[in-house]
Amino acid sequence: MRMYDLIQKKKAGAELTREEIDWMVQGYTKGDIPDYQMSAMTMAICFTGMNERETGDLTLSMRDSGDTVDLSSISGIKVDKHSTGGVGDKTSIALLPLVSSLGVKLAKMSGRGLGHTGGTIDKLEAIPGFKTDMSMEAFIAQVNDIGMAIMGQTADLAPADKKLYALRDVTATVDQMSLIASSIMSKKLAAGADAIVLDVKSGSGAFMKEFDDAKALAEAMVKIGKHAGKNCRAVITNMDEPLGRAVGNAIEVREAIDTLKGKGPEDFTKLVLALGSRMVFCAGLAADLKEAEDKLKAAINDGSALAQLKRFISAQGGDPSVADDTDKLKLAEGVMELKADRDGYIQRIICDEVGICSLMLGGGREKKSDEIDPSVGIYLYKKVGDDVKTGDVMAVLYHNDKDKGAAALERLKAAYHIGGERISPKEMILDEVD
Amino acid sequence: MRMYDLIQKKKAGAELTREEIDWMVQGYTKGDIPDYQMSAMTMAICFTGMNERETGDLTLSMRDSGDTVDLSSISGIKVDKHSTGGVGDKTSIALLPLVSSLGVKLAKMSGRGLGHTGGTIDKLEAIPGFKTDMSMEAFIAQVNDIGMAIMGQTADLAPADKKLYALRDVTATVDQMSLIASSIMSKKLAAGADAIVLDVKSGSGAFMKEFDDAKALAEAMVKIGKHAGKNCRAVITNMDEPLGRAVGNAIEVREAIDTLKGKGPEDFTKLVLALGSRMVFCAGLAADLKEAEDKLKAAINDGSALAQLKRFISAQGGDPSVADDTDKLKLAEGVMELKADRDGYIQRIICDEVGICSLMLGGGREKKSDEIDPSVGIYLYKKVGDDVKTGDVMAVLYHNDKDKGAAALERLKAAYHIGGERISPKEMILDEVD
Repeated sequence: MRMYDLIQKKKAGAELTREEIDWMVQGYTKGDIPDYQMSAMTMAICFTGMNERETGDLTLSMRDSGDTVDLSSISGIKVDKHSTGGVGDKTSIALLPLVSSLGVKLAKMSGRGLGHTGGTIDKLEAIPGFKTDMSMEAFIAQVNDIGMAIMGQTADLAPADKKLYALRDVTATVDQMSLIASSIMSKKLAAGADAIVLDVKSGSGAFMKEFDDAKALAEAMVKIGKHAGKNCRAVITNMDEPLGRAVGNAIEVREAIDTLKGKGPEDFTKLVLALGSRMVFCAGLAADLKEAEDKLKAAINDGSALAQLKRFISAQGGDPSVADDTDKLKLAEGVMELKADRDGYIQRIICDEVGICSLMLGGGREKKSDEIDPSVGIYLYKKVGDDVKTGDVMAVLYHNDKDKGAAALERLKAAYHIGGERISPKEMILDEVD
Repeated sequence: MRMYDLIQKKKAGAELTREEIDWMVQGYTKGDIPDYQMSAMTMAICFTGMNERETGDLTLSMRDSGDTVDLSSISGIKVDKHSTGGVGDKTSIALLPLVSSLGVKLAKMSGRGLGHTGGTIDKLEAIPGFKTDMSMEAFIAQVNDIGMAIMGQTADLAPADKKLYALRDVTATVDQMSLIASSIMSKKLAAGADAIVLDVKSGSGAFMKEFDDAKALAEAMVKIGKHAGKNCRAVITNMDEPLGRAVGNAIEVREAIDTLKGKGPEDFTKLVLALGSRMVFCAGLAADLKEAEDKLKAAINDGSALAQLKRFISAQGGDPSVADDTDKLKLAEGVMELKADRDGYIQRIICDEVGICSLMLGGGREKKSDEIDPSVGIYLYKKVGDDVKTGDVMAVLYHNDKDKGAAALERLKAAYHIGGERISPKEMILDEVD
C-alpha cells in the first residue's frame, strides 16, 4: 500500500477501505507516513468527505492506536459523558456526583483547558488538596468503591488522534465533520464505557456556531458510537451565552455545589437534569427519562447528591467541607463591577469574550505551561433577556491584579449588549439525537 | 501573516493577494513554512483553483526565489523554447541550430531525463566530447559568438519550484493546471529570454492525455508569459505515438542531423518547422509564419542549418564530423527485430511503452544516479496508419545485453497494435495559442 495512492483515491472522491484506513492511521502514528502526506489527505477529506462507514472505521483505527481502558472489572453499566466545550461549563462537577448517587458507575477521564474554555480537571483542582493524578488501578478501585472517579487523561489514549489533531490544527483542516466526530469518539471509545451521553453545544460560544452543524456533529458521533457497538445518544444545547452565572475555577465549583443543593442557576440546572436523566436511563436505572429525572431531583432534595460529591472529593484527596461551606473555595480579593450605562434589556453576551476575560484574569492558559489562578473569575448577575437600569451591576470580576482586572472589565463591557427591546433567551435544550 | 490563514482563505475559495503569495513562496523556500502546511495549501488549490492573476503571481514569486539569468549583454531578441515532454523528442537538437542559423539568439538551459522520457542534455552527450557544463559567462559568450548555446540547468533556478514540485510529487497534487503552468513558466522566466515558444504535447504519451487539458495548459502558460511581459505563444502537438522514428540517445541525434539535411521523418520535420517558424517570427525576423517557414526550409536546403549545428557542436567541445557521418554516433551492436505476426494496419503504438523499452535497454534513468548508455535505442520502421504484412520488420532494437534486449522486445511487441482497419495518424500540429 502507498499513501500516495490513498491520497489520490480520496482526492478523487472514492471510498477508503477499512484496511486502507487502518494502514494509514497506524503508519501515521508510528511516523512511517510523514505529516506532509497526512495533511494533503486531511485537506482532501475536507473537500470530498468520508461516508458513515469510513468515519466509523477511522474512529476505530484511532481508538486502537494506543491504550484502551478495560473497565470490565467494574460491575454494572459504565456510562461516560462528553461535552464539546464552552464557557462556564462546570457540568461534570455537578452532574457526575448526582448521577452516581443513583448507582450509575462513572469512570471518567477528563482534560485540562486551553484557550478561553476551561477544563474540568483545572476546576476540580480549585478544591484544596484535590488530586486527579492516579494509577489506572486506583482509578478502577475508586469506581468500585464509591461509584465514580475523575482522572486526568493519560497520554497513551488514542495517540493517532492526538497527532492528527495537532496537524489539523496548523493546516486549517479542523472543521470537517467526520474528522471532528472521529477525533472526539476515538478517545471516548478508548476510555472503555458501555454507554456515552454527548452534550453538543451550539451557538456563538461553541465550536459549532450553527445549530445545523451541531446537529450534524451529534448525528455523526451517535452513528460512530453505534458502529462501535455502544449505547450512544446526544443532546444539543445552547451556548449562545455562558452556562450558568459563574466563569472561572473556584467560582464555578461553588456554582456546581450550589446546584447539588437545589440552588443552582436555572439554565445550568436544566442542563444537568437533561444529561443526567439520559445517563441514568442508559444505565438501565429508570424506565424512561421522566422517571430518571424525578430520581435525580429527589437525590438533590434529600441531600444524597451532595453527600456523593463529598465522598468523591474525599476519595481524591480534597477537603469535602467545601461542599458545606463554599466560602472555603477562595475568590480573589480584588473586585470590580460592571455597571449598565443605559436602561434596557440584555440582548446578547458574547460568550467567547467572557471566556477570554477569565483567561486575561489568569483563570486559564494561553499555552500549556501557564499556571492557573483558581481564585479569579466572573459572576454574571445579568443574563440574556434580563432588564437593567442605568447603574445596575451586570457582572462582577474577581482579580489579583488591578491592571488585568481593568483590561478584563473593558473587554467584558464590550461583550454585553443592551438594547431597548425585550428578548427571550434561547432554550437550554435545543434538540437531541438517539 | 500566518500560513494557517492563507490555507484557510484558499480552502474557502478566496483569492490570495500578490503579497500573500510572495510571502508564502519565499517562506517555503527558506524553510520557514513547513511541508505539511504547503501540502495542505496545494491540495486546497487542487479543489478551489487559482485565477489568472494568482497563477501569474505564483509564477513570478517562484521565478524570484533564486537566480535569474541576465541575457541583456546579448544583442537582439532572445527566444526560448520549451516542450512538455514526450517519447522520441529530439526537437531542440534540430530546431535550435536551424533557428539560430537565421540569426535568432538562443541561450537555452535544458534538463536531463528521468523515467521514460529522455532529456536533451543526455542526448547531446551521445556526441563524442560534447559538454554542457559551463559557466554563465562562457554560456553568454558563446551565444554572442555563434548565436546559440545549450547548458545544463543550474541548481539555483527557481528553487521554490524545485521544492514545491518534489512535494506535489508525493502528495498527489501534481495534476492541477495552475500549479503545472506556474512550475514550467517559473523556470522559463528565470532563464531570461524575451520570447518563449511552448510545445504542449497531447496524447497517450504526453503528460496531458486529453487535448482539452493540453489546450488549457497552453492557455494558462501563455497568460503567465503575458503577465510577466513576455512575448509568448504555444503550439499543441500530437504525442499519441513516439515523435519521429528514433527513440534513444545517439539514434535520436542521428535523426535530428538527418532532419537538418532534409531527410528527417515527416512528422518530426513538421514539428520543427512549426516551432521554428514561430520562434523566427517572435524574434522579428519574418513578417509572418509563412515567410519564417520558407526561410527555415531554405536554411535546410542550402546547408546553413547543418553548418550551424557543426559550429554549435564544436563550440561545446564535441566532434562536428558526426554531422557529416552519423555512423560516428555509435549504435549498440546487438540488434533485434520486431516482426509483424499478422497482416493489417498499425492502429496504435503505446507511446509510454516505447519510452520504457528504451529505459529497459539502458537508454534512460530510473533514478538520478543511473548511468545512460547512449548507444542503445529503438528505430520504428512502422508507425500508426502504415500497412504491414506478416513477417515485416516493424521496429529494430539496439542493445548491449541480450536479456535486456529480449525483455524490451517483448514489451515493444505488446506496444504495437495491428488491426484490420486502415486508420489515419493524427495531425502533428493540433492547435495553437497566442
